[in-house]
Amino acid sequence: MYHQVHPKRKLLQPEETEEEKQFRAIYQQIAGDDMQICANELKTILKNVLSKHNDIKSEGFSLETCRSMIALMDTDGTGKLNLQEFKHLWKKIKDWQLIFKRYDKDKTWSISSFEMRNAVNDAGFQLNRQLYDIIAMRYADERLNIDFDSYICCFVRLEGMFRAFNAFDKDGDGIIKLNVLEWLQLTMYS
Amino acid sequence: MYHQVHPKRKLLQPEETEEEKQFRAIYQQIAGDDMQICANELKTILKNVLSKHNDIKSEGFSLETCRSMIALMDTDGTGKLNLQEFKHLWKKIKDWQLIFKRYDKDKTWSISSFEMRNAVNDAGFQLNRQLYDIIAMRYADERLNIDFDSYICCFVRLEGMFRAFNAFDKDGDGIIKLNVLEWLQLTMYS
Repeated sequence: MYHQVHPKRKLLQPEETEEEKQFRAIYQQIAGDDMQICANELKTILKNVLSKHNDIKSEGFSLETCRSMIALMDTDGTGKLNLQEFKHLWKKIKDWQLIFKRYDKDKTWSISSFEMRNAVNDAGFQLNRQLYDIIAMRYADERLNIDFDSYICCFVRLEGMFRAFNAFDKDGDGIIKLNVLEWLQLTMYS
Repeated sequence: MYHQVHPKRKLLQPEETEEEKQFRAIYQQIAGDDMQICANELKTILKNVLSKHNDIKSEGFSLETCRSMIALMDTDGTGKLNLQEFKHLWKKIKDWQLIFKRYDKDKTWSISSFEMRNAVNDAGFQLNRQLYDIIAMRYADERLNIDFDSYICCFVRLEGMFRAFNAFDKDGDGIIKLNVLEWLQLTMYS
């Protein structure tokens, strides 16, 4: 069956912003014809995009964080990101960095594990004390500080894990039942 | 109650090997008095240990892989590794690198996603096709090759996830039931 685009839908679609036009250009240059990017290419693109943002003092992200980002945003299961998925990711990074800056008062581009709790709450995640401790153990350095790369890596993992849980909890009762292969399928791609 | 060491137990305990003595020395130097190491220190120790092994051509592991390693081996939940936990980790790395070398025939210190399936099987993990595809998507580069760091990172994750599942599956029926906080507690520390 042929679906016509609803005329109102077209009207509601926002014009591409200047930033989005910039993305498309950088993206096309790096992604090539298929307009899909792998983790290495994402790393290059993010470095390029971040260098144009004076308000984000980051050298870019580690390859491992980029792989996690792809696993989080890759909704069509290609193992790569298309431009639309990249835009969603960028929006998330921008939202999360705003929260980060709220707590990084001395502008060392690093926040304490204690401030991380507030940041996690501000981002809309309701966790318990045990989980805050787990986050500190996993993402903080020996002085209990969390740098921007680890911070984003943590949020990417949190968001991905929440989403995986909700996708699996089809009846919405807040409980999931898994066998070992289902468990691995949910946890290995993150 | 006071437990006496059984005399036979003492006899059965192996003498410290030359390698283990070396570890203790490197470890003491880096870990300091508490003999516990964080991810950054683990990175330094592994680089040091690997440089003494002519049969493993690795520059060492990324900080992210070291964090995963700590999450896997940290059985007492301190967020750090003690010497005993480090020795277990080193044994695993040595076992896994033997398998790696079996498939890295051209000695590029990288194996294909296809060879990875055999390596995973050789290490005793029984997975399905979907999981092999997930591993390739998550750990292989754009030419579908998996380097040694990603290879170890994948095994650390696999082993950790299998262990977490089994620990949670108390009745051993092969099914686990989780609410969202239990799910996050199991998946965020890996």
